Amino acid sequence: MTRKILVLPGDGIGPEITAEASRILAACQAHGLDIEIEEGLVGGSAYDEHGEPLPAVTLDKAKAADAILLGAVGGPKWDKLEDLSKRPEKGLLGLRKNLGLFANLRPAITYPQLASASSLKPELVAGLDIMIVRELTGGIYFGQPRGIEVRDGQRVGFNTYVYSESEIERIGRVAFELAQKRGKRLCSVDKANVLEVTILWREVMERLAPEYPDVELSHMYVDNAAMQLVRAPKQFDVMVTGNMFGDILSDAAAMLTGSIGMLPSASLNESGQGMYEPCHGSAPDIAGKGIANPLATILSVAMMLRYSLGEPEFASRIEAAVGKVLDDGLRTADIASEGTRTVSTCEMGDAVLAAF
Amino acid sequence: MTRKILVLPGDGIGPEITAEASRILAACQAHGLDIEIEEGLVGGSAYDEHGEPLPAVTLDKAKAADAILLGAVGGPKWDKLEDLSKRPEKGLLGLRKNLGLFANLRPAITYPQLASASSLKPELVAGLDIMIVRELTGGIYFGQPRGIEVRDGQRVGFNTYVYSESEIERIGRVAFELAQKRGKRLCSVDKANVLEVTILWREVMERLAPEYPDVELSHMYVDNAAMQLVRAPKQFDVMVTGNMFGDILSDAAAMLTGSIGMLPSASLNESGQGMYEPCHGSAPDIAGKGIANPLATILSVAMMLRYSLGEPEFASRIEAAVGKVLDDGLRTADIASEGTRTVSTCEMGDAVLAAF
Ligand SMILES: CC(C)[C@H](C(=O)O)[C@@H](O)C(=O)O
Ligand SMILES: CC(C)[C@H](C(=O)O)[C@@H](O)C(=O)O
Repeated sequence: MTRKILVLPGDGIGPEITAEASRILAACQAHGLDIEIEEGLVGGSAYDEHGEPLPAVTLDKAKAADAILLGAVGGPKWDKLEDLSKRPEKGLLGLRKNLGLFANLRPAITYPQLASASSLKPELVAGLDIMIVRELTGGIYFGQPRGIEVRDGQRVGFNTYVYSESEIERIGRVAFELAQKRGKRLCSVDKANVLEVTILWREVMERLAPEYPDVELSHMYVDNAAMQLVRAPKQFDVMVTGNMFGDILSDAAAMLTGSIGMLPSASLNESGQGMYEPCHGSAPDIAGKGIANPLATILSVAMMLRYSLGEPEFASRIEAAVGKVLDDGLRTADIASEGTRTVSTCEMGDAVLAAF
Repeated sequence: MTRKILVLPGDGIGPEITAEASRILAACQAHGLDIEIEEGLVGGSAYDEHGEPLPAVTLDKAKAADAILLGAVGGPKWDKLEDLSKRPEKGLLGLRKNLGLFANLRPAITYPQLASASSLKPELVAGLDIMIVRELTGGIYFGQPRGIEVRDGQRVGFNTYVYSESEIERIGRVAFELAQKRGKRLCSVDKANVLEVTILWREVMERLAPEYPDVELSHMYVDNAAMQLVRAPKQFDVMVTGNMFGDILSDAAAMLTGSIGMLPSASLNESGQGMYEPCHGSAPDIAGKGIANPLATILSVAMMLRYSLGEPEFASRIEAAVGKVLDDGLRTADIASEGTRTVSTCEMGDAVLAAF
């Protein structure tokens, strides 16, 4: 059965990095993987073409796809759009919401070849391997009511941070199951000393715990979690948290590895359909220069093969190829260091293909 | 005119560290500072005694004081209290709200003597000096509606992230004015690509900017700010943000310095009345052992002398005394390193007094 892959390059460096990842997909195809690849527009580039960051045609293609590969969205060009609903980010948020991609898996891994690129002392990050599970279709990102309105003669902005028990339970189960397959430790991050919504979050996590007796559940306040990630990141195995805290903590964790240009992510729904994208953003400052690191996007293809397409062998081959080019000393500018060879986006893609 | 100082030791290590800070206050008194020192209960210790984390008697004393010195609140003993309004943290939040302490100043400074204590590479943090200005009486901490209720047959938790223009303007002015006195760069942190409340935040900051032409205003999304703090913290001078983001970012920033046991904070209202407290928490795990670091609390006294009591000379004398004990190689356990002498809480207090 032919599986459908939708590639959404997006904005900024998105087209450059997804181009390299698409070459890897094509290589898998040539080696017998039965897939069909389509492209679509999302984000600012979709807005420029269709006046919408998530045109109906893209959403239809996305719904029909088995998996989606996304580059990145956003850029200063669209930051001034008065109407928030037209911003590039709304394309991404719309895909997440419409496809029900509630489980965002964000690994923070230090590649042994890149440990010295971290701003942390090498011994604190060597061997780091955290999985952050972020709830992606709820919380303050989507809560109602929201807006800006006049109250008592002045404007007031407001958003609603809301979670139901079933939303919390659903993401909690994903996190517990991942912890079972890994180091068996799950840290749930909340602000239960201040926010009622996270008191419920903590309660539900506690209620689930007995069903996963092999997993050790702990709780941490978000401010402390931000500190502990900086102080001693290796204390964590799996972390689970809501949409907003997850956005902040997963980016901080990714940056600590020193390899943010290397980190893929997966966003899954209940039927295993997934969207895969690099952890980094659209980096408009370097767009079009051919120097962006395509490895996070290439590794996102590996995650796609593993989580949505059930092709772990192809996934491992891609990961091994990436490991080989790093061993060979090839680096894009963002991860370059003394004694390594700096290559372009395209040369990096060539090298991974050659090692595949 | 005799100024009134209220000391609120709180919970955990609070009593130990405020005891040392009170000795410094007493030393200032002996050197001619005209103050009157009172004590009061807040947090878990107040709950144990009065059934309330912020008893009326404490609030009355606080209102009558020119400045408050707080240790820290909270601990596992009270974490199970079903009624959130009785939790120790509510004592702290109640003081902030009732006294209108909207401006929280959290310096993140690397002490030259302690640069090696940071988990970041020394060159990234040497000389670091960031001031984080956190709005403290609004945002999601206090927004209504809030709670946990049954909707469509299941429980739902919700909180409201809300700011009015005047609240944003008030904290914005504090931040711009601080930037004017420092490096003249202000970075406002928001999530304006997703949250309406922070679109208004960004707009108000932009509107204020022309009134402070010598200050360069920039904006950063909170996820990026968390990354940039890890990657290259010295890029920042003053940062301004809301209550929740400020909680997370100021703790991360404090931890990066490696000197969180050294960092004071000030919370000010419109009339200059202030509450001063260390950035770190109540550390219940080491409470009562006599090993906590009292320097953040002692430096909070210095901040109090400078910001609320108009006594910059006394403030400088305290800061110089702290510098001297660090130069002499004295360290509490949290900041100890090879070649330094580890001392107890009380010995550290003795040393600062001797150097005063
Ligand atoms: C672009 C933005 C809306 C998005 C988010 O906040 O979720 C991004 O930061 C991410 O983490 O994927
Ligand atoms: C104790 C807690 C309520 C408090 C907060 O979240 O504001 C603390 O973390 C702080 O930053 O002062």
